[in-house]
Amino acid sequence: MHAAFALKGLVVDTPIAGEIRTREGYLVCEDGLVEGFYDSLPGRLSGIPVKDCGGRLILPGMSDLHLHAPQYSYCGTAMDLELLDWLERYTYPEESRYADLDYARKSYAFFTRDLLHTTTTRAAIFATIHPEATLELMRQLDEAGLGAYVGKLNMDRNCPEHYSEGSPENGALQTRRWLEMCREAGFARVFPILTPRFTPSVTDAYMQKIGEISREYGAAMQSHLSENLSEIEWVKSLCPDAQNYADTYARHGLFGGACRTIMAHCIYCPEEEDALMKRNGVFIAHCPTSNENVIAGIAPAARYLRNGYEIGLGSDVAGGHTLNLFAVMASAVQVSKLRWRYVDQTEKPLTMAEALYMATAGGGRFFGRVGLFEPGYCFDAVVVDDGATRNLREFSAPERIERCAYLLSSRVEAKYVDGCRIL
Amino acid sequence: MHAAFALKGLVVDTPIAGEIRTREGYLVCEDGLVEGFYDSLPGRLSGIPVKDCGGRLILPGMSDLHLHAPQYSYCGTAMDLELLDWLERYTYPEESRYADLDYARKSYAFFTRDLLHTTTTRAAIFATIHPEATLELMRQLDEAGLGAYVGKLNMDRNCPEHYSEGSPENGALQTRRWLEMCREAGFARVFPILTPRFTPSVTDAYMQKIGEISREYGAAMQSHLSENLSEIEWVKSLCPDAQNYADTYARHGLFGGACRTIMAHCIYCPEEEDALMKRNGVFIAHCPTSNENVIAGIAPAARYLRNGYEIGLGSDVAGGHTLNLFAVMASAVQVSKLRWRYVDQTEKPLTMAEALYMATAGGGRFFGRVGLFEPGYCFDAVVVDDGATRNLREFSAPERIERCAYLLSSRVEAKYVDGCRIL
Repeated sequence: MHAAFALKGLVVDTPIAGEIRTREGYLVCEDGLVEGFYDSLPGRLSGIPVKDCGGRLILPGMSDLHLHAPQYSYCGTAMDLELLDWLERYTYPEESRYADLDYARKSYAFFTRDLLHTTTTRAAIFATIHPEATLELMRQLDEAGLGAYVGKLNMDRNCPEHYSEGSPENGALQTRRWLEMCREAGFARVFPILTPRFTPSVTDAYMQKIGEISREYGAAMQSHLSENLSEIEWVKSLCPDAQNYADTYARHGLFGGACRTIMAHCIYCPEEEDALMKRNGVFIAHCPTSNENVIAGIAPAARYLRNGYEIGLGSDVAGGHTLNLFAVMASAVQVSKLRWRYVDQTEKPLTMAEALYMATAGGGRFFGRVGLFEPGYCFDAVVVDDGATRNLREFSAPERIERCAYLLSSRVEAKYVDGCRIL
Repeated sequence: MHAAFALKGLVVDTPIAGEIRTREGYLVCEDGLVEGFYDSLPGRLSGIPVKDCGGRLILPGMSDLHLHAPQYSYCGTAMDLELLDWLERYTYPEESRYADLDYARKSYAFFTRDLLHTTTTRAAIFATIHPEATLELMRQLDEAGLGAYVGKLNMDRNCPEHYSEGSPENGALQTRRWLEMCREAGFARVFPILTPRFTPSVTDAYMQKIGEISREYGAAMQSHLSENLSEIEWVKSLCPDAQNYADTYARHGLFGGACRTIMAHCIYCPEEEDALMKRNGVFIAHCPTSNENVIAGIAPAARYLRNGYEIGLGSDVAGGHTLNLFAVMASAVQVSKLRWRYVDQTEKPLTMAEALYMATAGGGRFFGRVGLFEPGYCFDAVVVDDGATRNLREFSAPERIERCAYLLSSRVEAKYVDGCRIL
């Protein structure tokens, strides 16, 4: 067998939402894909290199469906405002600094270094409106071996003059120029994704052009949806002829279907938005840490998950305060309990097994066959050393994962993407 | 000067709730107390030993007003039930194991080791009903140099037969025996506190005896109050003649005033309970992580703090999932935002400065002059290395504290209690 190897140890994943599968044995990689799992290596595989992971946890690499890389520089601060004021006061001033390529290079180096040390192997990332700085981020992520979709932002209204693309025409021009730069760069695992920031930042004329570019390039898209009540009212007043917030994207072909789409948040979606998301296979990025921090609310993630929507987790740095998806898993469970207590008792709170599913198999689906240890899936794996959480009890694998999520003292010891060891 | 020394560096505390005071200079300790703060050491102090803390943060040691040491063994697991079921299913079976002194010794060693490495210098702790095991915990904490009030639990109803004191008479006997053991042990900074688990666990007859013991020994008390709606209904049915939940303690002299008292949670207190807490100076232990995990709700902590109640933070391990009060601070801010969003818009969310106040000055008041760097206060200090949170930006001291709370990657490098270095 060509380029095959195995990880030996405690292999954990979630083929079914809400159930944690634990197997002890050999997880075999061949040509970057999961070849299979074996209690003991069969004869034809004898002789392949085996890395013994001892008692550590072997988990699928996690997928972060939503985060803003330029905001990482102030992550964990500036947590005192609601969304729209927060954008004006903290976000736009910081993001506009990425016009300076040198600043971008330095800042993204911190971001990439820290992301590499988390459990995340794939991410969908917002950058800024600057093509060169965005390309620099993509280059750094690719060199680190991470998998990502990265978006140069589209913005031509309701933003500071010095942090705007100015017009639909210039925006489209810059976007095409950036897409060509990406094509030329030919990164291994990092791809462009169209990223209209959110409807308030993008005129209808520009949104239409982004739809055209999506069809021209076959490009995926990501944006925000129904995060905050004031935002929803604002969208209504900006787009009085749209049927709802989702329609401001959908009427330009930017809401799932042929255009693979991630929508972050989805806290206050009316029924018809929900229906459209489901029909079009739109991925929901559930971002519980951010939704607390910018005082947005609590999304009905349990309902989405249990009703067959495409849903994964997003750290949403820097509305979210951490890149660590273990922390986001814990937060997802916790806020779902408060939602049950205060908002809606028709859906039981999320379980940690469901949170792990969203962080791995659920979000991974956006990136292809990612997030499970099944034959044919990308061999994305993290080896987690949770020795610091040990005490006198014996914990089961699901309990150990729960403790990784709550205690946040585990360490990613090794990390593989497409079978390549990157950490 | 006798036994004086100074810490040099960035000295941060909160003399006023909601305001962070940052001073750069020399914090002088003499005879275990804060002697003063100086921009530069005056002549009469020249020659005292100075520890240069470089750019690290020098914070008051934090006070954890509520936690269950025997539950630490399953901390971060078993998070799928509401309070009353959670007690039956997870808590009582584990706590009953502490009848075995050897088990207690081993388990408490993990607890003490881990508590030592947090920012906590003082804690109010629930143990189990076992006098010997409780004394063992007290001995370990005292040897580690930590300050604590520790309670052997009082329980004589609604608990498993093998985990009950059986009768008010035996309970009172065991409690007096334990108090005598404590007196004899003569710990330096660890003291007993009367601990009726909560009203459902303690008959009126036993509660009355506990009140008598409190007056006899001048002992403080700690318990739970109005955490969960089912619990409140249960108390009403158990004590139909009490005016409210608080009165089930107060009518026996166990609710503040001469009996210094901590009540954990206080989520659903009616007005008259609030009024009694305020009048009697009852300390509220606000436990936001636990209140999420056991699906209790969100306490009106901002209202309590801003209206002059005595209030501090509690990790409430193992309803809470971490001993780290930085994490509890972040959680306090986060859930207060959800409370504002979903429960009550009359009180703005807590700020991180208020959370730091509760963790230090607010909770510290229960232990005496603790939690501030003012002359005459106990010299309880932690030196926090937050180097792992650095990036290309310059962060102010309040921002660095915010990042310690959210990113949870700082490290306690040194720790002093009463001027003694214990880490």
